Amino acid sequence: MAADRFIAVTGGVGGAKLALGLTQMLTPDEVAFIVNTGDDFEHLGLHISPDIDTLVYTLSGESNAEAGWGRRGETWQFMQAMKQLGGETWFNLGDLDLAMHIERTQRLRKGATLTQVTKQLATALGVQFAVLPMSDAPVRTMIGTANGELAFQHYFVRDRCAPAVTGFRFAGASSAAPTREIETRLDDPALAGVIICPSNPFVSVDPVLSVPRMRERLKQLRAPVVAVSPIVAGTAIKGPTAKMMTELSIPNDADSVARHYRELIDGFVIDTQDAALEPAIAALGIATVVTQTVMLSLADRRQLADDVLRFVRRLNANA
Amino acid sequence: MAADRFIAVTGGVGGAKLALGLTQMLTPDEVAFIVNTGDDFEHLGLHISPDIDTLVYTLSGESNAEAGWGRRGETWQFMQAMKQLGGETWFNLGDLDLAMHIERTQRLRKGATLTQVTKQLATALGVQFAVLPMSDAPVRTMIGTANGELAFQHYFVRDRCAPAVTGFRFAGASSAAPTREIETRLDDPALAGVIICPSNPFVSVDPVLSVPRMRERLKQLRAPVVAVSPIVAGTAIKGPTAKMMTELSIPNDADSVARHYRELIDGFVIDTQDAALEPAIAALGIATVVTQTVMLSLADRRQLADDVLRFVRRLNANA
Repeated sequence: MAADRFIAVTGGVGGAKLALGLTQMLTPDEVAFIVNTGDDFEHLGLHISPDIDTLVYTLSGESNAEAGWGRRGETWQFMQAMKQLGGETWFNLGDLDLAMHIERTQRLRKGATLTQVTKQLATALGVQFAVLPMSDAPVRTMIGTANGELAFQHYFVRDRCAPAVTGFRFAGASSAAPTREIETRLDDPALAGVIICPSNPFVSVDPVLSVPRMRERLKQLRAPVVAVSPIVAGTAIKGPTAKMMTELSIPNDADSVARHYRELIDGFVIDTQDAALEPAIAALGIATVVTQTVMLSLADRRQLADDVLRFVRRLNANA
Repeated sequence: MAADRFIAVTGGVGGAKLALGLTQMLTPDEVAFIVNTGDDFEHLGLHISPDIDTLVYTLSGESNAEAGWGRRGETWQFMQAMKQLGGETWFNLGDLDLAMHIERTQRLRKGATLTQVTKQLATALGVQFAVLPMSDAPVRTMIGTANGELAFQHYFVRDRCAPAVTGFRFAGASSAAPTREIETRLDDPALAGVIICPSNPFVSVDPVLSVPRMRERLKQLRAPVVAVSPIVAGTAIKGPTAKMMTELSIPNDADSVARHYRELIDGFVIDTQDAALEPAIAALGIATVVTQTVMLSLADRRQLADDVLRFVRRLNANA
């Protein structure tokens, strides 16, 4: 059998769009997702895994397409009651979404791993694809800012990405490890390539790479690693990537993202709007594909997934 | 100033009806409520205090009058999502109600006492009356049944009171103690009397009395203790009281309740339908009042509160 299994590394909303496209082109046997858990946090006594939930809701058809996050048909009675009680309300927790956090927290307390719980909950929502937390150990993305270090959700949600970013730290990473489920897939001789979804390189992908052995394992793979630029025409489709790059004095260009991933990737996918950057990226020794990467419709997601898969297969055949 | 402060001991729905009547006749300075916490439990990682919540919702106007429990305008999105995830769904948790449990649990974890948290949450809902948990230490009502011992909520909600009752145990009672807030009110020279609301004697009032020193303190009070029968015409207005009495081979009569409280009470209030029992109760050396105790309307609650207060004041004047 030809090598035709894939791993995709993803954060939240932006990455989940391509992930959905990939699930339209591949079977659950053919693609698994490694998901950022660096923005997981404990809130109101609950273990919240925003990126895992975004992916699970997206793949199960439970996501709220209008809002771009959270669940379809979500209601906010709990939040209203919390406000009335004087509780913390800076992080929105929908009535449906709460079930995920409460059930996850319960199962973790009873001793299950995050990998096991994620599999159980995803399966309950009808997701057959493997949704793999980057680690079962806590790794927490901390944002260095001019006002001091902030936990990711404090920076991202509570403070709405306002503080200027000075750097990042992945607390706990040194004592984390890739899970057996991830190791097994990286060892799979049928692995045709790894796709880094168009997620924030600093706070969605780098946390995954901060897990010990992860970066080295990806570098040493025989199969190609391909990233899709989250920066198009100098701006981020979603989230604070471009703002962070400005604050870190990194040019807001797709080729800066390519340079960021330089030691890791074999190929890089950029948008047609950034076609002029192709020579600069090629000069880094990175193969490129130029295509439409902005995913508005489901057809866009399928098309980008198809383009990326062709690219990975081509690189793999040439490897 | 004449002694004119009261303490009412109450469980859930039945007792809360009279409690509401009392708050219509007295100011927050004049009446405090000691509430059963024997049916508190940990569920889905949350500290749930059903009787405290029933009283707080009742006194704040947040209770669901139609259902007889829970909150007005409650919705059940969370429960639907829990069902979808394969979580435990035998105990109904409304979306609004969840805020109370999550916020209580958080505050307890941060080190506040149940008394402090209850005061904060009741105040947030506009309740000015003192709602006092019987103890800050856990006391858990255990139901002896033919099938073995059951935690209260397993008996009451999950098994719908089906198992035949053989006895009761209040786990943890021996290491509990009345709170300072309760002691202070029992020591108050202005205390005119204690009212035992028409709650289940076995699983709502006896847990309160199981707290060390509580029974003795009530017995030794100069002020009278008056109970209102939860049994009217041989049946319980609400809940499993009559069924329990049958299973325990206790006649289903108001005078059996009077006998149950015999060493504790000075007065007993029975319904007009039970007027014939008055001589038997009087023969126990307990003063009686016969009045309408079935509370359907708010006017009924006020009227019974008025009747009970007159009775207590009269006994107190004669003491």
